Amino acid sequence: MIILGIDPGTTRVGFGVVQYDKSKLSPLAYGVIEPSFKDKALDMLYVHQEIQKIIVSHAPTCAGIEKLFFMKNKKTALAVSETKGSILLALGLAKIPVYEYTPLQVKQAVSSYGRADKDQVQKMVKLLLGIKDKIHPDDAADALAIAICCAHSIMGNKL
Amino acid sequence: MIILGIDPGTTRVGFGVVQYDKSKLSPLAYGVIEPSFKDKALDMLYVHQEIQKIIVSHAPTCAGIEKLFFMKNKKTALAVSETKGSILLALGLAKIPVYEYTPLQVKQAVSSYGRADKDQVQKMVKLLLGIKDKIHPDDAADALAIAICCAHSIMGNKL
Repeated sequence: MIILGIDPGTTRVGFGVVQYDKSKLSPLAYGVIEPSFKDKALDMLYVHQEIQKIIVSHAPTCAGIEKLFFMKNKKTALAVSETKGSILLALGLAKIPVYEYTPLQVKQAVSSYGRADKDQVQKMVKLLLGIKDKIHPDDAADALAIAICCAHSIMGNKL
Repeated sequence: MIILGIDPGTTRVGFGVVQYDKSKLSPLAYGVIEPSFKDKALDMLYVHQEIQKIIVSHAPTCAGIEKLFFMKNKKTALAVSETKGSILLALGLAKIPVYEYTPLQVKQAVSSYGRADKDQVQKMVKLLLGIKDKIHPDDAADALAIAICCAHSIMGNKL
């Protein structure tokens, strides 16, 4: 089973592809998509097309994406939701089931602790996936954490 | 010049196509897109594809869409923004310039009064476009109002 985790943002979108095989999780790819057209529609198109490339390359069985339910900055929340729309569309077109998780659920999945900070998430993702180098930037680590959370929830048990 | 106005919502998306020729505005098409799959990705895909059909049928020069900046219900605002993402993507793919307008700007464009209610907007849109029958539902009238607002702002003068 191949799981795609996505962490949408306004300036960049983290992605992480994880394989789940015989109770073992391993990383296949991770990184960030950084649109830079300074034009909303073109940026969204770029993100949409990059997600499509990842889908073609890795043929994920399903995808996990962060559920936005609260953000200090309302404008940011709306902009991220628009980008998320273009991502959901790429997944919908490819008929890939999508599951949404709150940041709390994601943190609990990798650290059993809902208030884990960026460093703790980074550390646990590296440990769970056997990655030695620092995962850079944090958005990629967050996307891998979402993929791990998705694996947990689909398998219905803590790995 | 052909202008497409779009009023995005969670349950339905209003659209209105208006022609602007020699200082005269006339309606070409209007209505609503109502997805009903009860699945977020499929609903968004449906809206995206219906917008693409409208683009192919009417070849708009540009599009106007409502700018969300405040909503009482945060969840609704985020969901509408996701749908808006799939709409912006259809416009981006077709290389159609998009302009965003706040509800206040739209109301002022059709009624010179920012606090105009649904009935007043309906009445003024009918008057400005020479439509005799009631425009049903209100979302379609709102989309036509957005198209009129877009025409105003592009031409730089009140019609």
